[in-house]
Amino acid sequence: LDDDVPLILTLDEGGSGSSAPLGDLDREELPDENGGSYDVINDASSPAAGDCCAQPSSARHNWEMNYQEAAIYLQEGENNDKFFTHPKNAKALAAYLFVHNHLFYLMELSTALLLLLLSLCEAPAVPMLRLGIFVHATLELFALIVVVFELSMKMRWLGFQTFIRHKRTMVKTCVLFVQFIEAIVVLVRQTSHVRITRALRCIFLVDCRYCGAVRRNLRQIFQSLPPFIDILLLLLFFMVIFAILGFYLFSPNPSDPYFNTLENSLVNLFVLLTTSNFPDVMMPSYARNPWSCVFFIVYLSIELYFIMNLLLAVVFDTFNDIEKRKFKSLLLHKRTAIQHAYHLLVTKQRPSGISFKHLEGLLRFYRPRMGAREHYLTFKALNQSNTPLLSLKDFYNFYEVVGLKWKAKRNREHWFDDLPRTAFLIFKGINILVKSRAFQYTMYTVVAVNGIWILVETFMLQGGNFFSRNVPWSYIVFLTIYGVELLLKTTGLGPVEYLSSGWNLFDFSVTLFAFLGLMALAFNMEPFYFIVVLRPLQLLRLFKLKKRYRNVLDTMFELFPRMASLGLTLLIFYYCFAIVGMEFFAGMVYPNCCNTSTVADSYRFLNHTVGNKTVVEEGYYYLNNFDNILNSFVTLFELTVVNDWYIIMEGVTSQTTHWSRLYFMIFYIVTMVVMTIIVAFILDAFVFRMNYTRKNQDSEEDNGIVLEKEISKEEVVGIIELYKRSSAAVDTSQLQKIVLQMDKYGQMSTVFLGRRSRTKSDLSMKMYEEEIQEWYEEHSRKEESQPPLQEPAAASNSSLKPLSLRQRSQTVI
Amino acid sequence: LDDDVPLILTLDEGGSGSSAPLGDLDREELPDENGGSYDVINDASSPAAGDCCAQPSSARHNWEMNYQEAAIYLQEGENNDKFFTHPKNAKALAAYLFVHNHLFYLMELSTALLLLLLSLCEAPAVPMLRLGIFVHATLELFALIVVVFELSMKMRWLGFQTFIRHKRTMVKTCVLFVQFIEAIVVLVRQTSHVRITRALRCIFLVDCRYCGAVRRNLRQIFQSLPPFIDILLLLLFFMVIFAILGFYLFSPNPSDPYFNTLENSLVNLFVLLTTSNFPDVMMPSYARNPWSCVFFIVYLSIELYFIMNLLLAVVFDTFNDIEKRKFKSLLLHKRTAIQHAYHLLVTKQRPSGISFKHLEGLLRFYRPRMGAREHYLTFKALNQSNTPLLSLKDFYNFYEVVGLKWKAKRNREHWFDDLPRTAFLIFKGINILVKSRAFQYTMYTVVAVNGIWILVETFMLQGGNFFSRNVPWSYIVFLTIYGVELLLKTTGLGPVEYLSSGWNLFDFSVTLFAFLGLMALAFNMEPFYFIVVLRPLQLLRLFKLKKRYRNVLDTMFELFPRMASLGLTLLIFYYCFAIVGMEFFAGMVYPNCCNTSTVADSYRFLNHTVGNKTVVEEGYYYLNNFDNILNSFVTLFELTVVNDWYIIMEGVTSQTTHWSRLYFMIFYIVTMVVMTIIVAFILDAFVFRMNYTRKNQDSEEDNGIVLEKEISKEEVVGIIELYKRSSAAVDTSQLQKIVLQMDKYGQMSTVFLGRRSRTKSDLSMKMYEEEIQEWYEEHSRKEESQPPLQEPAAASNSSLKPLSLRQRSQTVI
Repeated sequence: LDDDVPLILTLDEGGSGSSAPLGDLDREELPDENGGSYDVINDASSPAAGDCCAQPSSARHNWEMNYQEAAIYLQEGENNDKFFTHPKNAKALAAYLFVHNHLFYLMELSTALLLLLLSLCEAPAVPMLRLGIFVHATLELFALIVVVFELSMKMRWLGFQTFIRHKRTMVKTCVLFVQFIEAIVVLVRQTSHVRITRALRCIFLVDCRYCGAVRRNLRQIFQSLPPFIDILLLLLFFMVIFAILGFYLFSPNPSDPYFNTLENSLVNLFVLLTTSNFPDVMMPSYARNPWSCVFFIVYLSIELYFIMNLLLAVVFDTFNDIEKRKFKSLLLHKRTAIQHAYHLLVTKQRPSGISFKHLEGLLRFYRPRMGAREHYLTFKALNQSNTPLLSLKDFYNFYEVVGLKWKAKRNREHWFDDLPRTAFLIFKGINILVKSRAFQYTMYTVVAVNGIWILVETFMLQGGNFFSRNVPWSYIVFLTIYGVELLLKTTGLGPVEYLSSGWNLFDFSVTLFAFLGLMALAFNMEPFYFIVVLRPLQLLRLFKLKKRYRNVLDTMFELFPRMASLGLTLLIFYYCFAIVGMEFFAGMVYPNCCNTSTVADSYRFLNHTVGNKTVVEEGYYYLNNFDNILNSFVTLFELTVVNDWYIIMEGVTSQTTHWSRLYFMIFYIVTMVVMTIIVAFILDAFVFRMNYTRKNQDSEEDNGIVLEKEISKEEVVGIIELYKRSSAAVDTSQLQKIVLQMDKYGQMSTVFLGRRSRTKSDLSMKMYEEEIQEWYEEHSRKEESQPPLQEPAAASNSSLKPLSLRQRSQTVI
Repeated sequence: LDDDVPLILTLDEGGSGSSAPLGDLDREELPDENGGSYDVINDASSPAAGDCCAQPSSARHNWEMNYQEAAIYLQEGENNDKFFTHPKNAKALAAYLFVHNHLFYLMELSTALLLLLLSLCEAPAVPMLRLGIFVHATLELFALIVVVFELSMKMRWLGFQTFIRHKRTMVKTCVLFVQFIEAIVVLVRQTSHVRITRALRCIFLVDCRYCGAVRRNLRQIFQSLPPFIDILLLLLFFMVIFAILGFYLFSPNPSDPYFNTLENSLVNLFVLLTTSNFPDVMMPSYARNPWSCVFFIVYLSIELYFIMNLLLAVVFDTFNDIEKRKFKSLLLHKRTAIQHAYHLLVTKQRPSGISFKHLEGLLRFYRPRMGAREHYLTFKALNQSNTPLLSLKDFYNFYEVVGLKWKAKRNREHWFDDLPRTAFLIFKGINILVKSRAFQYTMYTVVAVNGIWILVETFMLQGGNFFSRNVPWSYIVFLTIYGVELLLKTTGLGPVEYLSSGWNLFDFSVTLFAFLGLMALAFNMEPFYFIVVLRPLQLLRLFKLKKRYRNVLDTMFELFPRMASLGLTLLIFYYCFAIVGMEFFAGMVYPNCCNTSTVADSYRFLNHTVGNKTVVEEGYYYLNNFDNILNSFVTLFELTVVNDWYIIMEGVTSQTTHWSRLYFMIFYIVTMVVMTIIVAFILDAFVFRMNYTRKNQDSEEDNGIVLEKEISKEEVVGIIELYKRSSAAVDTSQLQKIVLQMDKYGQMSTVFLGRRSRTKSDLSMKMYEEEIQEWYEEHSRKEESQPPLQEPAAASNSSLKPLSLRQRSQTVI
């Protein structure tokens, strides 16, 4: 047992160089030998803050410190936190643990959301949510004080030096300061001034731990900007050339309002770039001379069809490149984190690997919820060489393995295998029926018929009153069929297998909701929308038919998190523009406001009497205003869709100044950037996925990563013994259950399946397989040129002789 | 000299299997030895048709036959003609030579163009070009007869069997037949019926030899269709679901005309997909209930932002894949062609390679314009192993090498090196000045100032009369500066070096045209447009500044041929739709035509008096009609740009039937396909190019392929001797000039540079480097499993001993 001394207790000794790790305090008190062997498990049951730093007196404690620091390193690797933010001392560690906590994250998020949502109630407020100035300013101050608290905790963790160096946090602090002053000013003056700085509130949301994806997106957008701007300049350059040309060519035509000044000429060509005014802008000159269409055709061909696509190509390319570089740096960062953790876990006596005990200690900190069974299975899964110790090479797979969810492999093929003979035969029959192609295609036919039925029914309905409370009988018929199908499938496959397929889950929920709608009807509620919305959804099942659709939908689900984060990024831009728009344009647009502009018709609202009928002439565009934040969002969405955006622009411009156009044009360019990147992202993701499928055409059907590990009864018993010997508080009931199970079925071993869904990172791993090796080599070469981490090991223990068998059986556990 | 018997005279013997090649006739008369050695050059000076098949009596003639057949194989490889169209006998050969001829190609092209252009003069004709029915029908008949002649020549070449098997030609024949009958009917009835089949005239153009790129595009489009249609169905499916939903939700609103019937609901959601009616379609329901915007936002997010991009992704991916497969098959086809040619050129005695003499014979047929010098340089360039014979491996580079343009490398650094000392120093000074960064940046500044000047000047001009005949003095000043720059550069660099750069050429021509404009002014002509158009063009020089722009512009030029062919493909679709549109909608749309429709405003043309002023209210949309083919093209372009296309659709629909919408919707989908493919192509090309640049960052500056070959004086003299000995009619003056040049400068050898511009194929070669090797191996494996081409060689000549020196010096030549 004398081999249980950590090789390095502080990374300082290990030569990581960049920072003094938290082991610092304990250096002087380091004993050469470790007293307790497994009672370690006993006295450090929870990785709570401060607990581990309070009593640094025993050597055993050093192991706990090392476990915790290793877990922190691995966390940093996972979250892509830079190592220079690694906690440096016990105080910092306490702050670190306080800050890295879901409660704290939630607090961060809710404060940020509160601040953002305040704009619903402030000055140009949504009518229903209007609050007094005193109320919302107080709320704001409260939220800001919470942010101050959060920041001070972060400062405690990072230390003043690092805090200052950390750009994002510094920006946040400045914004916080400005917001604070403004909130106090508002409270004192009891009136809201022009507060464009409210647009900066987004930074509080962006800085949340949960918004890491948004931060990455923003970074990626900013990194894509330089090439984007280059091409944008090319675009604007041609626009100016054509504006000059257009002005010369068309301004002599008095009936052409689009080119009468150079400014108009420029603005209209900008709008033409979005095609928003297309045939109209050409018409006056086209009516005069048919050949003038050449000007417009050439302009559109160059600008819209060539340079705009070029823009997409350049962004796509840059995006691709950044994506790859990001993946590379993340991968190497994780690798470094694993190295750091590894060197904290090996013992002085055996620097060639980590024993199960130490891995278990690490996992207690890294994944507090993991049970004893998972600990051992993780060790088994990592341990590819089947030696009692995990080598660094084994340990490199840590992140891939630790995410697996373990389940015992079922021995029975069907859920009804244990039932009596007759029942078995019945269920077996149902099972065969349900799995048959005929059954499947019958169902597809039913769904198709249902679809046609709905279409025809709706078509026949025109003009009739479809608000009658009678549910059409076809609805009940089809629902019955779906219900029977559901029952058959559940009984035939067993509920667990049935619901393990995403498509079945979808069928199940749609049918269930339809039933609920029917029930609601029986109890005289408003089931109408239910039915309307849910009926066509059944048709989605048809898309199971083709592999391409399955692929598309799978990819869609895989991409959903990224898509959502991109959507959120877009919303953050919306928020900024909405605030600015509200400050400048609120209340500017109203019915009949813009009678002097060229777009007066769209803003008209007239109630005049022709004969004895009242005719309402309504242009509706006054609805697209910036009167409150919700309206602003809708208006901005309309601007994003681009069509007829110039009507909104011209309406506002006619009520304010020419310079308002800048707002709209800048918004257009910003959304163009973001939308181009979204397009590039979708393109990239799908092309990537399709390439991947093409590369692995054989293994197309499995979705997710699956690992199989066999555990023998002896092993399990051994571990239970060990835990008992060490009188640990670890719950071994899970393990005991396994033993019981094995006894029941008379097996000598059980096979466990570890499963997790495939992530983008797994796909990238496979795609860049060859390059990854190069990166690793390059990385390790770079590290060798620095003072290496491994050196102390080599220095203190130059003879790496194989362990004896006795040692081996000991260290297995 | 007894080694001069071809290894195979006909491919039949060689076992090509698929077809009996043209050597057929000569098989019986094959002598075992070849009499003449180099007098071959004497009696087959031109590869004229029939010439080679007329006198198959001498063995020497067999060589000529082999040369010609090899040349035909190589041509087929280059043009991607399948080998089953290889001419089978002397008659077919004559027809082949007749058909593969620029004169014939031109005839083909002009007939096709004539047929297409006829629609300018037929029934709904362009007013100025209207022709009598008798005239245009006669013209049509004439053109069709020419096509019949062309087809009969092709039939002669292909033989009836192959002719029937060739799909494209068969379709063409059918179309021809229909057109013939219709033309006769028109001529007889003296009136034009509904001739939608005119849309099929495009096939005559598509079938032209010069339109190979268009054919390839069309094929690629059709190959991309299946995945495209899949996603399109997904799109339409969601559209139907939302249409039903929208109908239920919004039809109770009487002020909402967009969703009052299911048909309207569908049509409007289709238009919404193009965003063309966006805020308007939402406004009535939005005015009633603000939350109804959710419906539209969800619809647009799913359809426009997700599925449409998915469409692009799928097309991009398919396109990419097809592009690669196409490249692969082209490459392998060329390889096979080279193998066929190789086996026709090796001799029975030395089957391991081709001697210069035989290569020269081949080149005489393959490139009749090539001189003796180029022949020898091509041989040298191919001959990488420096043995007297070209191995098959050497010969594989044939296509890469044969395209090179050879030039002697100049020994002098500057053009003025030979001038007297003073002049030299002056020119050297200018040279240094011109090449200095300061000079370059001064010029950039001048251009920028010029740009700003033009902008300001135009801006100041507003409302003034800018049609004065005075050229602004700034124009003269800047032009003078550009003139001086041009002079300095020409003198400093020498005209040849100056003009060898594309950018300088651009500068030169712009400045020259500006001068011409000035001259025209001096002679009181209309130089106005000249100046207006040319002045801003100077600003384009600014884009030399950044590498990215240079890259973009270079790529643009490289892509230009492909872009043009894609444009032509689009035009062909336009033509078809224009004909159909003219037949159905000509004359339907006129001012105030559509007063019953929802888009009546856009078609209004009113002249009414308010007070004492005449107010013209003009909607202009009646100009977007199908009254003649030119108008139709403009209308179709407007439909392609998509914005407000529904106004055109609704206008026409209100004058005809609901079914007219099908025409517009189908056109939208077709252009969507073509435009998506154009976008995919641009994306692909640029991404490819950028990847390429990233891969070869070191060799970024060279544009084009360059090969260097040194030729010693002895070699040249030897070749001249040889040509003389063989009393050939080949012009050796070029070679003699080289010798003179060498004598003059006292050199023993001259270095020649072979240059050609880089093509997409070269880029692909580099990109797929690794895969290409696999393809080759796979290909040769496949060939080995077939009766191989090489076998007779191995059988008849199993000992491939190295040639003796004596033989060597002989065969060099």
